[in-house]
Amino acid sequence: MLDTLGIALIGCGTVGGGVAEILLRHGDRLASRAGRPLALRRIVVRDPSKVRDPIIPKELISTDHAAAIHDPSVHVVVELIGGTTTAKKVVLDALSAGKHVVTANKALLADAGHEIFEAARKAQRAVCFEAAVAGGVPIIRALGESLAANQVTAIQGILNGTSNFILTAMAEQGMTYAAALAEAQKLGYAEADPTLDVDGSDAAHKLAVLAQIAFGVAARPHEIQRNGIDTLDAMDIRFADELGYTIKLLAEAWTGEVEGERGRQGEGESKSGRRVALHVAPVLLRHTDLLAQVRGAYNAILVHGDIVGETLYQGPGAGRGPTASSVVADLIDIAVGRAQCTFAAAQLWSKANKGFEIEPAERVRSRFYLRLLVADKPGVLADVTRILADEQISISSMVQHEAAESGGSPVPLVIVTHYAETGRFKAALAKINRLASAAAPAVFFSMGD
Amino acid sequence: MLDTLGIALIGCGTVGGGVAEILLRHGDRLASRAGRPLALRRIVVRDPSKVRDPIIPKELISTDHAAAIHDPSVHVVVELIGGTTTAKKVVLDALSAGKHVVTANKALLADAGHEIFEAARKAQRAVCFEAAVAGGVPIIRALGESLAANQVTAIQGILNGTSNFILTAMAEQGMTYAAALAEAQKLGYAEADPTLDVDGSDAAHKLAVLAQIAFGVAARPHEIQRNGIDTLDAMDIRFADELGYTIKLLAEAWTGEVEGERGRQGEGESKSGRRVALHVAPVLLRHTDLLAQVRGAYNAILVHGDIVGETLYQGPGAGRGPTASSVVADLIDIAVGRAQCTFAAAQLWSKANKGFEIEPAERVRSRFYLRLLVADKPGVLADVTRILADEQISISSMVQHEAAESGGSPVPLVIVTHYAETGRFKAALAKINRLASAAAPAVFFSMGD
Repeated sequence: MLDTLGIALIGCGTVGGGVAEILLRHGDRLASRAGRPLALRRIVVRDPSKVRDPIIPKELISTDHAAAIHDPSVHVVVELIGGTTTAKKVVLDALSAGKHVVTANKALLADAGHEIFEAARKAQRAVCFEAAVAGGVPIIRALGESLAANQVTAIQGILNGTSNFILTAMAEQGMTYAAALAEAQKLGYAEADPTLDVDGSDAAHKLAVLAQIAFGVAARPHEIQRNGIDTLDAMDIRFADELGYTIKLLAEAWTGEVEGERGRQGEGESKSGRRVALHVAPVLLRHTDLLAQVRGAYNAILVHGDIVGETLYQGPGAGRGPTASSVVADLIDIAVGRAQCTFAAAQLWSKANKGFEIEPAERVRSRFYLRLLVADKPGVLADVTRILADEQISISSMVQHEAAESGGSPVPLVIVTHYAETGRFKAALAKINRLASAAAPAVFFSMGD
Repeated sequence: MLDTLGIALIGCGTVGGGVAEILLRHGDRLASRAGRPLALRRIVVRDPSKVRDPIIPKELISTDHAAAIHDPSVHVVVELIGGTTTAKKVVLDALSAGKHVVTANKALLADAGHEIFEAARKAQRAVCFEAAVAGGVPIIRALGESLAANQVTAIQGILNGTSNFILTAMAEQGMTYAAALAEAQKLGYAEADPTLDVDGSDAAHKLAVLAQIAFGVAARPHEIQRNGIDTLDAMDIRFADELGYTIKLLAEAWTGEVEGERGRQGEGESKSGRRVALHVAPVLLRHTDLLAQVRGAYNAILVHGDIVGETLYQGPGAGRGPTASSVVADLIDIAVGRAQCTFAAAQLWSKANKGFEIEPAERVRSRFYLRLLVADKPGVLADVTRILADEQISISSMVQHEAAESGGSPVPLVIVTHYAETGRFKAALAKINRLASAAAPAVFFSMGD
């Protein structure tokens, strides 16, 4: 049997505590899977006086990052403190001290992937991050290894469990956004400040990581078009349902090589380089779509590869067990030697990696759901349809219900378009919002088909 | 860049042709993923005169296994001829010649896993087989690597696309088994002789492979309880639907550690060693279950791990592209060096591997769907329920419709039981079948919950 792999854990909150517990409780299992023992040597925390699982030996705990990183009996540093300042220093220091790194920190990778991976290549050490995207769902290995024969042509992911929980409660129990959020907070699925989850930022960080693996594209989070669910009106969930659709917060990446018209680039465009469109947004999916059926706090990712076709990966997207399971899988990969092979071959966040370019959002083609609140009077529909026609946007379907009491109060009007370029659609939208009959700004979403 | 990895392809049918095409058409892509070129050096076929894809250079084709295996420029032998005689010889010869092996042959692994893996360990070469189970779905890597921190406690798989296609057509279009099979054959989803697909043999081979990875159990296919869909009556699909269930052909493995009562072993049993129950059978799943929603020729596997909880893997289970995609992923793993690490660490089909024992089928606990055809006369229900009660089997629900014309013709009676030991259920079944009022042998299925 090979030598023991020594591990330092930086951060011992929910996930860190889970990792510590697995390492301490299942030593025999892990040694048999890895072909060598995995030993937890040090745990670095902010508050050493905090009460922890009694299985954690007190003598492992300290507040000293540097001592843990430079301990010669430590071979891998697991960064689980989150954020992009201390975490970045810990990761870079660990690499320069010759340690492998395991992290669940998508924000750090999305923000500083180049710097971290260049440092790792220089130090000839591996950086593993299965837990950074979709918790217990092994999407990093799927994209990087299992689908390696393919060029991925599209990714559609439900990557934020909090948002999916809220959307499920709104759709199935008719809750308002505020009530569903309160329920999610009560059950521990949402933080006290849920902003990063519900505004799409968290999903955008994860999408940036997936896009690097699948397309070699170094998308900074601010380059990803992003709409959250925090402004979603229950009315639109009902209209979508009536049309046969479910609204999901999707993180999507797609190239012009996808079947069907969505994402197809203009003529001649394909010659100038390969492009990928990226966004995080509420999207209307047909009720029968696989992703439409993903309920509650689950995550799921549908990947389209040019050879394999569509494969789906689904599971718990967050939480102690699932995330710790992925962190420990990375530790076993390092113990076995796989991670080092993968790291060398993959050349992630490398300048040598000639990846896709990001398709400008305005050029992306999509079908759109458009919901207006308009005055219930003659000529309004004529005005709206004229504006759409002027931008070459044709209408696929429409819903307007008879107003119960039409005493001048605005009524909703829902229009689903055929494929249109986002730029032209938004131009039409601006004109519609300037109509005298528009009682509120128009609401719109992409259609998933 | 490392040296070229030389590949010999033994068998060039549907899947082999797909592998050849990927290697020949996407050389740059594969080299960039693997960090070294992958070169197709030889293709061995039965009939060299057969017309093939023009991309395949004729000079690579021969009928000489030995020459391909012993070619010093060949480092990996890909066995895609199927069967367990010539294929076994090819694999063993390749290993003893010092070549790595990639195979999609589940029957060979289920039948001769020990012999092949011992030979590979002796030769210090890797055997890879992602394509052997569920085509393009990376379930081998998921179980062996991504979930390595977990003890898997249950696997539920739709592993035979032909059967799932037929069941979907029966359920959704109300077809008879015969009509659905004919449709599957017309569309190329079923062979002219579909026996191995529809009688559960193919799924049992695949389950044996998964059970080896997840439980270290060396189940020979004949040790796996197996019922196919070839005797399924459309009537039972309708009754199941009425009760809220969908019938799927599942390959299942589960331990006593699963939540809920299913599979729980008798008291004291757990002390004598860890046991896993295995079967392939039509199972009733609630309409809302993830696997109930898998339609057509798709495969899907739900894996329960003790740390991660449930994760689901879904995709095309067969066919040229999906299967070739998995074969080439294995080739890249070998080129990168991952496969060699995995092979050494995993110790599959090893006598040193103290795995689970197989739970005797009679001891497995389950709920059951029981459908009788009985004479429509007084006392029948009393007889049946008395027999069940005598075996301590209690009834959860029951369906008997009013007979349209009760002119003495037998009527169906459906009973769903609470949990019962399979042995006692079968004892009751034998008594029920001996009743004078039984017009046909009773039909039964396990319930998935």
